[in-house]
Amino acid sequence: MSTGRGAEGMRVLFAAPAHLWDAWSPALRAACPEMELCRDGDPAGFDALIYAPGYPENGQALDFTPFTRARVIQSLWAGVERIVTNPTLTQPLCRMVDPGLAQGMVEYCTGWALRTHLGMDRFAQDGAWRNRLTPPLAQGRGVTVLGMGELGRAVALALAGLGFRVAGWSQSGRPVPGIEVLAGDALPQALGRAEILICLLPDTAGTRNLLDAERLALLPPGATVINAGRGTLIDEAALLAALDRGRPGHAVLDVFRQEPLPPDHPFWRHPGVTVTPHVAAETRPASAAPVVAENLRRAMQGAPLLHLVDRVRGY
Amino acid sequence: MSTGRGAEGMRVLFAAPAHLWDAWSPALRAACPEMELCRDGDPAGFDALIYAPGYPENGQALDFTPFTRARVIQSLWAGVERIVTNPTLTQPLCRMVDPGLAQGMVEYCTGWALRTHLGMDRFAQDGAWRNRLTPPLAQGRGVTVLGMGELGRAVALALAGLGFRVAGWSQSGRPVPGIEVLAGDALPQALGRAEILICLLPDTAGTRNLLDAERLALLPPGATVINAGRGTLIDEAALLAALDRGRPGHAVLDVFRQEPLPPDHPFWRHPGVTVTPHVAAETRPASAAPVVAENLRRAMQGAPLLHLVDRVRGY
Repeated sequence: MSTGRGAEGMRVLFAAPAHLWDAWSPALRAACPEMELCRDGDPAGFDALIYAPGYPENGQALDFTPFTRARVIQSLWAGVERIVTNPTLTQPLCRMVDPGLAQGMVEYCTGWALRTHLGMDRFAQDGAWRNRLTPPLAQGRGVTVLGMGELGRAVALALAGLGFRVAGWSQSGRPVPGIEVLAGDALPQALGRAEILICLLPDTAGTRNLLDAERLALLPPGATVINAGRGTLIDEAALLAALDRGRPGHAVLDVFRQEPLPPDHPFWRHPGVTVTPHVAAETRPASAAPVVAENLRRAMQGAPLLHLVDRVRGY
Repeated sequence: MSTGRGAEGMRVLFAAPAHLWDAWSPALRAACPEMELCRDGDPAGFDALIYAPGYPENGQALDFTPFTRARVIQSLWAGVERIVTNPTLTQPLCRMVDPGLAQGMVEYCTGWALRTHLGMDRFAQDGAWRNRLTPPLAQGRGVTVLGMGELGRAVALALAGLGFRVAGWSQSGRPVPGIEVLAGDALPQALGRAEILICLLPDTAGTRNLLDAERLALLPPGATVINAGRGTLIDEAALLAALDRGRPGHAVLDVFRQEPLPPDHPFWRHPGVTVTPHVAAETRPASAAPVVAENLRRAMQGAPLLHLVDRVRGY
């Protein structure tokens, strides 16, 4: 990263829901003290936007048209599917790639993978000494990570470091040092070896309902699906039917088509589903603000932006 | 390790409970095909013993005196406190150091540390979307590992690799590359920084009741104690009283003074205790048998034995 200043005189709009201001503005100002961070003002006067869906808070999508001078729209979050689909967006859009976010994702996915692998939930505290079942060592456990972006790679490497037999899958099959990566057409093989399947794909036209009835049926019996990517990756009705057949045997779901997950959703009641409330990777101001500052400086200096979204791929 | 043969003509007694024979004898014979593995015979005729407490199955401790020709007593298990205290033992005794055992211990301790760290058990499946609490990243979590033997080192390095702020503690304070190791007198500091305390010490005169009321009170409020070492490390009554005061807040216990833990033991009922039935590290024949074979060959060749027990230290 560039060091020091570079965004002098830059006017930046914090275009995010109001409740985020208190946590974010001190971190952003500390990371980029030379900019002028604003909560409102004339759209034509801003050099950049720090944006999160839910702004403005009138229920309408933001109209990006009047931000005629903005050199960059920096997303506060990693997922940008609610931004790229905004037809008024013509400015360069950058995803958040928060080093803390990848670390948080590693911790969530590793924690749930180990809980599954070790069969931790078999130890009812009822006085019975159940020590007969010995799980295989991690070397004997096939884990597949769907999605080899920043997060998928970090998770795959962490699990491989603990000894799991890890493979990755991505549309391109682009190599990742230390991980066997299967490409597009090899999805059936990627699923067939996945005693633990970790979904970390973005939401795009190509990934929506990727895990449908046919593909879920390719998982080994008793497999565990961990979805920490996007709710749209999985056909929810197909997953519930597949769980009833024990293939997969369990699903740990952190993301959903509708969030918060409605209290009457069948996922809450299904014994094969564990719901967590979109906590797998939270963007933390302390680690994310320096990434924002770097991109603001690059925008002002005309340098290449980091984590620029490809509008065709959608991420 | 030495390769190939070296124990030709060696007569070895499998001096372990009978139910272990079926799982162990094929692995032992595969790893050391040149030895003669026996289930019984004239004690004076054996060159070595592969030993596990519970043999003979008459409830008496084994009398090692008549094994006048034995060059090595190879323990099947890592813990040898029930062997070194046998006054008839004069032959060299070797602990089991199973590479699979260290891996299993890493998986158990990492899995429970992450479950604790991430607060996984707060997600009741009751329809409520509880996403406010954000745990710190692992970098913000102090973990102390008591015991820097083979297992403690492996666990400390795995947790450090995941980002945890790890320190080790051992009586000697002998350095471990990549881990800060505190020595003997620094036990209060080791405990004071331990939001997660992992106990992997052996059972010796010096470690018995190491965690007594006074030392447990040094832990941070809400700390978690994970004991996968020996049940004797912790004063059980003091732990129950300390849990009632929330310091520590939780204990995950895999080892106990009496095993199986009696069904009426208060640990089963205490809401702050999770009991697991001595599963943290099982010695697996496939990975342990080559270790036995190596030591049998060394014994026959007069080469230095691996993992020889120091009778004064007791491990």
